[in-house]
Amino acid sequence: MKVNMMHGAGGEVMGELLQTLTKFTHNNAGGIGLEALDDGAVIPFAGENLVFTTDSHVVRPIFFPGGDIGRISVCGTVNDLAMMGGRPIALSCGMIIEEGFETANLERIVASMDEALGEAGASIVTGDTKVVERGALDGIAINTAGIGIAKRIVRDNGLVPGDVIIVSGTLGDHGLAIMAHREGFDLGEQIHSDVAPLSKMMEKVMEAGTIHAMKDPTRGGFASAINEMAKKAGVCVRIREDQVPIRKSVKSAAAMLGIDPLEVANEGKVVMGVPAMDADAILAALRSHKYGKDATVIGTVTTGAHVIMETAIGGERFIEPPMGDPVPRVC
Amino acid sequence: MKVNMMHGAGGEVMGELLQTLTKFTHNNAGGIGLEALDDGAVIPFAGENLVFTTDSHVVRPIFFPGGDIGRISVCGTVNDLAMMGGRPIALSCGMIIEEGFETANLERIVASMDEALGEAGASIVTGDTKVVERGALDGIAINTAGIGIAKRIVRDNGLVPGDVIIVSGTLGDHGLAIMAHREGFDLGEQIHSDVAPLSKMMEKVMEAGTIHAMKDPTRGGFASAINEMAKKAGVCVRIREDQVPIRKSVKSAAAMLGIDPLEVANEGKVVMGVPAMDADAILAALRSHKYGKDATVIGTVTTGAHVIMETAIGGERFIEPPMGDPVPRVC
Ligand SMILES: Nc1ncnc2c1ncn2[C@@H]1O[C@H](COP(=O)(O)OP(=O)(O)OP(=O)(O)O)[C@@H](O)[C@H]1O
Ligand SMILES: Nc1ncnc2c1ncn2[C@@H]1O[C@H](COP(=O)(O)OP(=O)(O)OP(=O)(O)O)[C@@H](O)[C@H]1O
Ligand SMILES: [Mg+2]
Ligand SMILES: [Mg+2]
Ligand SMILES: [Mg+2]
Ligand SMILES: [Mg+2]
Ligand SMILES: [Mg+2]
Ligand SMILES: [Mg+2]
Repeated sequence: MKVNMMHGAGGEVMGELLQTLTKFTHNNAGGIGLEALDDGAVIPFAGENLVFTTDSHVVRPIFFPGGDIGRISVCGTVNDLAMMGGRPIALSCGMIIEEGFETANLERIVASMDEALGEAGASIVTGDTKVVERGALDGIAINTAGIGIAKRIVRDNGLVPGDVIIVSGTLGDHGLAIMAHREGFDLGEQIHSDVAPLSKMMEKVMEAGTIHAMKDPTRGGFASAINEMAKKAGVCVRIREDQVPIRKSVKSAAAMLGIDPLEVANEGKVVMGVPAMDADAILAALRSHKYGKDATVIGTVTTGAHVIMETAIGGERFIEPPMGDPVPRVC
Repeated sequence: MKVNMMHGAGGEVMGELLQTLTKFTHNNAGGIGLEALDDGAVIPFAGENLVFTTDSHVVRPIFFPGGDIGRISVCGTVNDLAMMGGRPIALSCGMIIEEGFETANLERIVASMDEALGEAGASIVTGDTKVVERGALDGIAINTAGIGIAKRIVRDNGLVPGDVIIVSGTLGDHGLAIMAHREGFDLGEQIHSDVAPLSKMMEKVMEAGTIHAMKDPTRGGFASAINEMAKKAGVCVRIREDQVPIRKSVKSAAAMLGIDPLEVANEGKVVMGVPAMDADAILAALRSHKYGKDATVIGTVTTGAHVIMETAIGGERFIEPPMGDPVPRVC
């Protein structure tokens, strides 16, 4: 068998490849390990919880509306730490660069990473650089790994019936920003990526109330994240279509491209399930932060299985787990 | 300016690029950070020392005599942790895969990583997978990052006059194994890479005596590592050529290729400076382990500067810091 693009697209097909790639007998350092397939691992250490995660980034183009590969490289890892309840402390940076790459672009990328680090309250403390010959890579790929500390660990499998589902803002911005930019769409209003570090916001949110489960809806988008959360918890999630925040420009671009905005990557959003009694306080905490100002309740958790969309006209349909993100090289 | 192959070759030229790539204002999490340019960072945490490091791997071919990209990906990070005095605990694995890559090869790579993890006493607890379209990468690149715990931190800058310099075994094996294999040399005896995880050996060695400074002589080889150690400490290192262990087959291949075996990467060796009174105990500890059986004293530290080779016939010459490793894609 050969690897295909869908194997890296964050959906069901990637899940199959991950069975091969996670076949380590040495897969756990004492806490939450690879077997959990959560946003990161947890390592109990000296009475505290270390969180550890990694993401590589191959997004194209490397500079896009609202962000660049540097910003996304920091945010990807910072957000996976935050999704585990972790406050990011230290990141590593592994760059693979094609011969001929402009050093001026490296400077821009490093400056952008540094800015995101400042926002996130983290540092890059170690790194590595490899250069490959012209043609062996199309430009640059950046991996970061990160260490965080979690007072309270939050898993992606903790939804319980009665929870309300909250998203921290509009969905689909990143994936459609990338696609509209690639296609050269002129939609009047340019779509910007939402790429942002959520750690500071999540610190406040975690103080405001209890979070039963959360996940960042990256590759495969909201549809992938919510299906994974529902499946892991063995619950049904009901989403109200008229409550799901999607920008008009994102809807238009998605319609023109024939893709579902709920299946494309976000890079500055969180999906969470919280007890109904904590929802108002958590919403308030989210909305008090610039990256959560459009936060809203979009659904509820019940017993059962599947993710169901209650449409505006009173119908119902499944939100299926996508085979993969329709946007290649989205992050 | 454009990036060239030497920018990734571990020598003086790479040092220049690193000035750009390490220009983070957020570069330290409280202990030893990016500014030290050591094998890894140290983060003081809960009264203990976390060590954190990363290496990406783009070695070609991906399967080579004595190892493969999976084994080297685990060993690279495990060894940088060990070089800081860290016992490896948890690793991350970020894979970037070209569309069309054989999943059977992924299986081999994962199995090889798992074996190396077992030897090192570490686990892969988190990962990431990206797939890029055919032609955007030649096969696969693997990043690992790792967390270790150090009872005693060892830096690469701690050499003091009077120290003796020890290497844990023969030099040049990895780089020449790769080159001889690429060139299809038939040297009678095949050269095997030395790629190996040194953590277990180093745990024993650190109990046997004091280590003032150490480093793994990877890209740029022994010449690069020892010059960096001498320069950082502001000392002179004198090496006795007749004591430097190099296999005959490695010497022959190096001569045929016109490259210096001291300038090519090793992947299972350590160079250290230790107080003279501890040298015997440390040598014994090294030699008691399979990866240190050829360990030997090769020189001494004096006041002054530079690394000087005392040749077998009584002459002297500098061991210059190499511009870069002569073997491209060596790790
Ligand atoms: N090559 C790999 N080796 C080991 N584990 C992996 C690998 N690739 C992914 N994983 C694991 O599989 C799970 C899913 O990974 P994935 O990258 O989709 O998560 P994510 O980082 O939350 O999403 P995204 O990368 O889209 O931001 C995680 O638990 C991750 O640790
Ligand atoms: N892209 C980067 N960003 C930040 N720091 C980097 C980057 N590349 C290298 N560094 C830092 O520069 C120093 C030298 O890196 P290098 O990779 O040569 O060390 P090494 O891992 O010991 O050697 P090798 O990679 O050959 O095994 C290290 O301190 C490393 O943290
Ligand atoms: Mg995630
Ligand atoms: Mg992620
Ligand atoms: Mg390195
Ligand atoms: Mg090193
Ligand atoms: Mg290294
Ligand atoms: Mg990931």
